[in-house]
Amino acid sequence: MDLQSHQAIPERLLLGPGPSNCPPEVLRAMGAPVLGYMDPAYLAIMDETCALLRGVFGTDNEVTFPVSGTGSAGMEAALVNVIEPEDRVVVASAGFFSQRMAEIARRAGAEVTLAEAPWGSAVDPAAVEAALRATRARVLCCVHMETSTGVLQPLEPLAALARRYEALFVVDTVASLGGVDVGVDRVGIDVCYSGSQKCLSAPPGLAPVTVGPRALEAVARRRRPVSSWYLDVALLKGYWTGAARSYHHTGPCSMVYALREALRVVHQEGLPARYLRHRQNAAALAAGLGVLGLSFLPGEDVRSPTLLVPRVPEGVDEGRVRRRLLDEYSIEIAGGLGELRGKVWRIGLMGHSSQARNVLFLLGALGHILREEGHRCDPGAGIRAAADVYRRGDGARV
Amino acid sequence: MDLQSHQAIPERLLLGPGPSNCPPEVLRAMGAPVLGYMDPAYLAIMDETCALLRGVFGTDNEVTFPVSGTGSAGMEAALVNVIEPEDRVVVASAGFFSQRMAEIARRAGAEVTLAEAPWGSAVDPAAVEAALRATRARVLCCVHMETSTGVLQPLEPLAALARRYEALFVVDTVASLGGVDVGVDRVGIDVCYSGSQKCLSAPPGLAPVTVGPRALEAVARRRRPVSSWYLDVALLKGYWTGAARSYHHTGPCSMVYALREALRVVHQEGLPARYLRHRQNAAALAAGLGVLGLSFLPGEDVRSPTLLVPRVPEGVDEGRVRRRLLDEYSIEIAGGLGELRGKVWRIGLMGHSSQARNVLFLLGALGHILREEGHRCDPGAGIRAAADVYRRGDGARV
Repeated sequence: MDLQSHQAIPERLLLGPGPSNCPPEVLRAMGAPVLGYMDPAYLAIMDETCALLRGVFGTDNEVTFPVSGTGSAGMEAALVNVIEPEDRVVVASAGFFSQRMAEIARRAGAEVTLAEAPWGSAVDPAAVEAALRATRARVLCCVHMETSTGVLQPLEPLAALARRYEALFVVDTVASLGGVDVGVDRVGIDVCYSGSQKCLSAPPGLAPVTVGPRALEAVARRRRPVSSWYLDVALLKGYWTGAARSYHHTGPCSMVYALREALRVVHQEGLPARYLRHRQNAAALAAGLGVLGLSFLPGEDVRSPTLLVPRVPEGVDEGRVRRRLLDEYSIEIAGGLGELRGKVWRIGLMGHSSQARNVLFLLGALGHILREEGHRCDPGAGIRAAADVYRRGDGARV
Repeated sequence: MDLQSHQAIPERLLLGPGPSNCPPEVLRAMGAPVLGYMDPAYLAIMDETCALLRGVFGTDNEVTFPVSGTGSAGMEAALVNVIEPEDRVVVASAGFFSQRMAEIARRAGAEVTLAEAPWGSAVDPAAVEAALRATRARVLCCVHMETSTGVLQPLEPLAALARRYEALFVVDTVASLGGVDVGVDRVGIDVCYSGSQKCLSAPPGLAPVTVGPRALEAVARRRRPVSSWYLDVALLKGYWTGAARSYHHTGPCSMVYALREALRVVHQEGLPARYLRHRQNAAALAAGLGVLGLSFLPGEDVRSPTLLVPRVPEGVDEGRVRRRLLDEYSIEIAGGLGELRGKVWRIGLMGHSSQARNVLFLLGALGHILREEGHRCDPGAGIRAAADVYRRGDGARV
């Protein structure tokens, strides 16, 4: 092993679909000493983390904690606990991550019915109702903010359908929690999960999950154990809640310190101020990208303030633009996933990355590169349009 | 939320069964900036981490990487990828963690046969052979270092049986890797997993895993997909190895930075020196505990140098001793698990925690508390006995 080749870690401006940049105090939190999984000091930190998570989820659910894995582990935990083999499940699907939900549900043995919409649209509640009526499914799944398309799915109509058809409502908020209001109890979500590294701006590695009373009853009525021991909510609940604290697995304490610190930052900013900040910066970026001649995949009414998905202009090599942003400016944005590969960019303004200076820097760099790559635009126009939005101070809409 | 109640993080001397204390440079490594999961700089760090892991596992297996979860996620990953429903599996079982392997194998649909030994003993190869002969199992599982009992299971005889009976050999090295020689290729282990937080002394949260060619063939021949999407080795392999780097889930980069740094520390010390250090400190601690009047659960021939398991002396309140160590000296040791609850202590000397000064400090504190708690002993005798061992400089045996 040649330790001379040791890889240094560059500083990036993270404007992709996640991870976002962490506030410095969140990175510093991980430097604190490691604690044992039954240390009274660690148990108190776990409790504080759960209380802060309830605040951002908008829930009183006792079973609210971070799963020891990334957002995809949260997805798997949410699904495998409420699904048993041969269960019928409806997935509202209009993107890459709802397809992943369907795949995980199938592996858990479910008969999955998709209520589909084209990528770039929200799923029509009428399509979901038709699927629920036809299948009498036990579980309805959807992605709140689809990071493959930039669409924010309205949750209330689907929640009402889940109630009417007596299905559990499972919602992916990996790319919305902390940037857009979720409101688990207000909306009526039974199982909700997220990731630490997007709008919460902790490093990747934890998946906040909350499980409501209807879902816990379903878990208690299971005919056979959950296929995953690691993600079994009944066991995890015994460690994270209540007085007994029965050992399950060794808690990833350093990550929990970081998540706790990130949640404290969220709490101190306040949720309404945070959501407004996300909307304002997204509005400024959208205005700037618009005058640079880019159009957006999602319609204005379903566009998320946490991730913009512009189409790549004709004749421009999208991979080359991204590489130049990374190499020349150390800015990360992402390309398209699945059927959108090569057709769109995905530009995130999540959590700590959602700042006016980042919007202006990106617009300056992108305008410059786009013109050099043969796209006709005034490279300074994007910054001016964004600055106008900040000057007007509206930004209620993206 | 009362942020005034914010929980501070105390500095502990971690002498339980894990986590161990991290070297300061490992904690600092997590303060580096977050990188996206496809950043070329991050991909290079992943490669370096895998290369360092191959060194400590003693393997040329290409598929060698950390699973994004704790040691128990590594256990689940190792088992669910090679087990299909109705498969017959033999588990060599003499403790809490082999029982957990059996439980996870059952949840994966296996028919599990235990080859058992009393807790505190190693499993007799004859019992394993009888089980393999009777069941013609596809998979043989064992725990190398059983942290519930302190027993180090000799691997070579079981590896030979696995070959003879054409079973895959799956070995848990959560509490041995980096402290005791494992030698995956030399021994002939097909799937091996560990945890980041024990003898490697990174924080908890990652599970190094290595998968050999026979196991990969078995994965390729599966009749149905792995129940866990998150832990599916065929998918993870596509992200961690090869040129394509197909996106699977967002890598927990900060934890990977820490693991890489911890592995560099291991590499710089050198494996033979590191194993000798573990043996010497364990020998000194064992001598000290012995003259304080404690006896050990495992016989001397199977005692692990990474964790000593002394019996609680008659008349001593074991929980009270542990609480006093924590409250008065900030030292963590652990009590018994499962059937050994209340009967033993578990004292780890793992990775960075395996230091002479820690041995002497613990013996001083424990001697003092034991006498105050009514146990007849000379409280200074433990330190003197340990110092004698260091002076002699042997320590080839625990």
